[in-house]
Amino acid sequence: MRDVAIIGIGETEFGELWNKSFREIGIEAGFKAIEDAGITSQQIDALYIGNMSAGKFIEQEHVAPLVADYSGLADMHLPAVRVEAAGASGGVALATGYMAVASGMYNIVIVGGAEKMTDVGDTQALQILSATADQEWESVFGATFPSLYAMMARRHMHVYGTTRENLAAVAVKNHRNGSLNPNAQYRREISMEMVLNAPPVATPLGMFDCAPLSDGGAAVVLCPMDRAKKFTDTPIQILGSGIATDTLALHNRRDICTMDATVIAGKRALHQAKRTPKDVKVAEVHDNFTIAEIMAVEDLRFFEKGKGGAATEEGLTALNGEVSVNTSGGLKARGQPVGATGVAQAIEIVRQLRGEADKRQVDDATTGLIHNVGGTGATAVVHILERGD
Amino acid sequence: MRDVAIIGIGETEFGELWNKSFREIGIEAGFKAIEDAGITSQQIDALYIGNMSAGKFIEQEHVAPLVADYSGLADMHLPAVRVEAAGASGGVALATGYMAVASGMYNIVIVGGAEKMTDVGDTQALQILSATADQEWESVFGATFPSLYAMMARRHMHVYGTTRENLAAVAVKNHRNGSLNPNAQYRREISMEMVLNAPPVATPLGMFDCAPLSDGGAAVVLCPMDRAKKFTDTPIQILGSGIATDTLALHNRRDICTMDATVIAGKRALHQAKRTPKDVKVAEVHDNFTIAEIMAVEDLRFFEKGKGGAATEEGLTALNGEVSVNTSGGLKARGQPVGATGVAQAIEIVRQLRGEADKRQVDDATTGLIHNVGGTGATAVVHILERGD
Repeated sequence: MRDVAIIGIGETEFGELWNKSFREIGIEAGFKAIEDAGITSQQIDALYIGNMSAGKFIEQEHVAPLVADYSGLADMHLPAVRVEAAGASGGVALATGYMAVASGMYNIVIVGGAEKMTDVGDTQALQILSATADQEWESVFGATFPSLYAMMARRHMHVYGTTRENLAAVAVKNHRNGSLNPNAQYRREISMEMVLNAPPVATPLGMFDCAPLSDGGAAVVLCPMDRAKKFTDTPIQILGSGIATDTLALHNRRDICTMDATVIAGKRALHQAKRTPKDVKVAEVHDNFTIAEIMAVEDLRFFEKGKGGAATEEGLTALNGEVSVNTSGGLKARGQPVGATGVAQAIEIVRQLRGEADKRQVDDATTGLIHNVGGTGATAVVHILERGD
Repeated sequence: MRDVAIIGIGETEFGELWNKSFREIGIEAGFKAIEDAGITSQQIDALYIGNMSAGKFIEQEHVAPLVADYSGLADMHLPAVRVEAAGASGGVALATGYMAVASGMYNIVIVGGAEKMTDVGDTQALQILSATADQEWESVFGATFPSLYAMMARRHMHVYGTTRENLAAVAVKNHRNGSLNPNAQYRREISMEMVLNAPPVATPLGMFDCAPLSDGGAAVVLCPMDRAKKFTDTPIQILGSGIATDTLALHNRRDICTMDATVIAGKRALHQAKRTPKDVKVAEVHDNFTIAEIMAVEDLRFFEKGKGGAATEEGLTALNGEVSVNTSGGLKARGQPVGATGVAQAIEIVRQLRGEADKRQVDDATTGLIHNVGGTGATAVVHILERGD
């Protein structure tokens, strides 16, 4: 298999984009990535699109040819494939695009992700999100997405002594990082008090413990490493790519304080990359809820199981801490247009490794990690990136 | 890239399976394929699942880990990826699984497809199917899936003199083939008169011009060609795999009598396989409507453009005709559980090439072709198969 590089990145703003349609979002992200890569659209060999629920949010399935079409590429009749893995759709698209280039099947591949979530009401959006958990054993009985994460939080607090303040520290940190990111949906700092006093969503999780609903798109351009230098001085190599799955239903898991899919996907990616968690200086992890980031930094072995909350409150995951986590603001502050999330995470790590992250630049950003989760952890995808020059 | 073989096949019955859930269907197909391949589940490296709209039919997204979970594979935390390309979801899953093995990333891969369509009413099912056409330019104005195909039929009749009887001949032939297939949803022959006198759905298409709504699942097992002989005496090699896309909306097409995506996907697959249309002895093509099969046999270059209807009525596509088309009964008679369709097509061609098609066995089944379409032709996938021994 060939080495693969990311040579271009592009994203829309994330937020409630009521003046932009799904197709406009997809095109904008793609065009920006193409421009950033300095390729022409004639050079593109294939598209991989991550999208969770366009069928339900905008009544449109079959969105991969749609994106190709509206990007003016219809005449090329490109292979265009949509993948779906709930919140991990973007990460799985990246893994599939990576495989397409690594295999030698295609040379230049666009990996895009997009979601348009705010055209439906909040209640309907919540129902749509809950369809990524186990419909027959969870959602049908009224278990919502936040309530399932709340159960993990309760259990984590019970078993490891994780505190409400530990959870809140995730939100405070990610909003601080988001305030330094001009593309973030929320660019205001929040205080610990604000998080602790916010209205409850599913106790112990309050409003500021939950990532928002967002519209947005993100795209990256991949090519073989040995051709990357033709396009850019700072190709970013994908050193490792791991996907793992688990049961949909929480009650079937070995332990709901650990996402085994994250553990395994992380090991697979790090093993392929020949790196250890200690090598990782900057990471975008899946913080759809504050408890999710705490579990992620443990399951990715940045910290011992049970110590992730304290480590966060101590600032070890802050900008230029031991490992800088969610410098973009994460899903919490950068926003969470579901299908775009995994690709947007890649973009942030590319910016960090290129040294283009401006006010939120990590000093020694040598090795980066991306961690994208679907549902309540039934899918996890991890990628390891480094500068390839 | 490595050569890839299909070493196992498995399918459920197709029909209105009110006593089986989506997850039961997925498991049954997978287990049968695993048993047919003679592998153990411990040998599986990854799953690729084709599914169109479980999010809408059964309110369940994220179905790839679900299938892994309910197949008892959760402990292996396998990479499991759902792909969606409307009616071509199964074919795109096969193409992606092919790439996964060809790349060297995985050795043993299950490609599955499943759909559970009859848990919703017919009107809702029609709306769900119509979401695979262009929502903003077609479906929202009331254009249904059959009406879009009816427009193609009208135009084809106008330009090429294709007759109502030509269309009907597709249904008659495919029901005859279906009567020989114990797994088909409809196993009764129908007469030309029955087709012509059936109630109209979208004129000129009547009830017997349309494939049914179905529940069902299908799965195949892939492995590298050089290991295939360990598992089976009759490995079936995938010689070519082509995906192509086109505009979602019909009005943006160059010509609605041709599916350019089919033309291009066919050329890509045949080019890779180093075969010509003349080499193909048996083909499963996407006959969701009778006009679709006529266009397919032209666009795949079995017959000149405009001659597909007459060729069908003359029997050139009948069992042991010039090219035996839809020996399974096709979508029309075998049934059309959307996400499973592309995989079920592969299974029929594998049976033919193995010489296991019993009463519908084609005499000189040397080279087989699979053609799977999404929406009204915005995605097409073509695979070329031959015996690998």
